[in-house]
Amino acid sequence: MLWRKFGNVRKIKFCQWCGGPAKHEIPDGEEKIRAICTLCGKIAYQNPKMVVGCLIEHDRKILLCKRNIEPSLGLWTLPAGYLEIGESAAEGAIRETWEEAGAEVEVISPFAQLDIPLIGQTYVIFLAKLKKPQFSPGPESSECCLFEVDDIPFDSLAFSSIFVTLNLYIEDVKSGKVKFHYGTINKRLGTGPSDIRAFTLDYHLQV
Amino acid sequence: MLWRKFGNVRKIKFCQWCGGPAKHEIPDGEEKIRAICTLCGKIAYQNPKMVVGCLIEHDRKILLCKRNIEPSLGLWTLPAGYLEIGESAAEGAIRETWEEAGAEVEVISPFAQLDIPLIGQTYVIFLAKLKKPQFSPGPESSECCLFEVDDIPFDSLAFSSIFVTLNLYIEDVKSGKVKFHYGTINKRLGTGPSDIRAFTLDYHLQV
Repeated sequence: MLWRKFGNVRKIKFCQWCGGPAKHEIPDGEEKIRAICTLCGKIAYQNPKMVVGCLIEHDRKILLCKRNIEPSLGLWTLPAGYLEIGESAAEGAIRETWEEAGAEVEVISPFAQLDIPLIGQTYVIFLAKLKKPQFSPGPESSECCLFEVDDIPFDSLAFSSIFVTLNLYIEDVKSGKVKFHYGTINKRLGTGPSDIRAFTLDYHLQV
Repeated sequence: MLWRKFGNVRKIKFCQWCGGPAKHEIPDGEEKIRAICTLCGKIAYQNPKMVVGCLIEHDRKILLCKRNIEPSLGLWTLPAGYLEIGESAAEGAIRETWEEAGAEVEVISPFAQLDIPLIGQTYVIFLAKLKKPQFSPGPESSECCLFEVDDIPFDSLAFSSIFVTLNLYIEDVKSGKVKFHYGTINKRLGTGPSDIRAFTLDYHLQV
């Protein structure tokens, strides 16, 4: 467990509400080190973030976007991004799809929740369909394409989460039943973010 | 949409990394107002938080905890709490169950994801079972009890999310098939957090 990044609490040096200097201690009644303001006493909690996105089926094909930004510039991904305050996960996934792929989609069903504890992220992916057969790359994408399941570019995918999602989807399609998947992506020790196959999928539960 | 609380970005007055004063503007290439440091330029993003918990089945009964802390002191809830950096949702749900109900559980299946956009929370609830038939209230609970499905105290539940979760579970049990549910809890305008029935469940999708 030592290799897990515990949110870099020590990088928080000031209180964002009053500007006071932070100390790093375990608060009374808690068990983890937190950044606590030495002036106003507020605790700056850090929590994992949700990344929400769509797996869009159209004519038995899947819509992928080629990334026009770092990280993973030039590699393929599903339209996805950080959930914002004030929106639901489905709304966020629809918004990200519009921003990255210029596509209006309808969410059909939840498909996967994949936690990545090492980096404090949880992917929430929905199955979706195009409302109109139109899409075009937004500023964060250089290209958007529909891929047949057998043509998905597995050697140039952007992230482990996308690799897992597409593999689970293909297995489901081949078995004749698309399910909901929960799982944890544990990156292998000493591997970098670009080693997208260097992980184990743990705690995989399906409904 | 105006009634939604957009993360109180204006409460962020200082940069937590360098202590510089924050300004509140829409960054280049973005669409929402963010707190941006006027010294180092870093943006303090605010994102929804995940609350993870367990719906524990034992001898056709459900384990509930009576809250020993505010909010909703004295009302009944499922063991649940904020997901921490470095743990998966399932690990977090198991930890919270241990902390609040003194129970060792095994997660069986994902049961629900319920977004509450108004307060920037997402509930992730797992079906679980006791590893040993033992439980006892932790510091945040005054009591833990197993309830028959027909005896669940619906008039003294702590939160809308718990009300929805238990209702969906009972419907599933009665239909003979426990499913996975995704939905959005939209609180009704002008109602308070204690009006736990003042909501609509929107975008309800089940697998």
